[in-house]
Amino acid sequence: MTYTTQTEVDRPFDDAVDRTISALEEEGFGVLCDIDVRATFAEKLGEEFRQYRILGACNPQLAYEGLESEVELGALLPCNVIVYERDDGTVVVSAVDAGQLVGITDNPELDPIAEDVSDRFERVLGSL
Amino acid sequence: MTYTTQTEVDRPFDDAVDRTISALEEEGFGVLCDIDVRATFAEKLGEEFRQYRILGACNPQLAYEGLESEVELGALLPCNVIVYERDDGTVVVSAVDAGQLVGITDNPELDPIAEDVSDRFERVLGSL
Repeated sequence: MTYTTQTEVDRPFDDAVDRTISALEEEGFGVLCDIDVRATFAEKLGEEFRQYRILGACNPQLAYEGLESEVELGALLPCNVIVYERDDGTVVVSAVDAGQLVGITDNPELDPIAEDVSDRFERVLGSL
Repeated sequence: MTYTTQTEVDRPFDDAVDRTISALEEEGFGVLCDIDVRATFAEKLGEEFRQYRILGACNPQLAYEGLESEVELGALLPCNVIVYERDDGTVVVSAVDAGQLVGITDNPELDPIAEDVSDRFERVLGSL
């Protein structure tokens, strides 16, 4: 199943990460969580891994509306945008499909919020 | 739909958070992301909100196996455990149902990993 929307970026990895964070900010998302997957695996497991960052993006107003409607929603937040290198070195930026993620809750009140997040993520990916 | 497993905890909020983090560590999870939702809403929106923390828990070995099998899985990681106060002040600790979360991927290779996470989360909640 497709649970992300992706775009390939013609930039070096670190530059793609920085540009993604800026683009998220322009769409009202703060990056509340930034996990360097490669560094984590190197430190904790001694394993090499591709360049890979998980950016947990939160638009405070949308998160507030969502949590007011569904207190357990935090179990699914923030919405992630990931940046990683494919085997061939291509850099990919990929945003979680908020509709599918929030779909787990089966709460239709959250649908317009998820749509808003998806629209913003689409603009973020389009701007890279 | 139920997408979390919860337990009520007879402890003050901050104590519940600390105990949850320790219990996660005992089950091999690092907390890679710790979002103070109340503080975020106060700072960004000027809104009051209940006490609420989102702990993004990652077991490096399981995350490594998952990402080796499915590169986009990071869009759904880490797996969250949330701690919040109900309206009546009861403190609740609630772990995302890893099976449902990972179910979005439709990749059966991930099922045993999700089951392992769920078993560990169950022990975490049981120990609080």
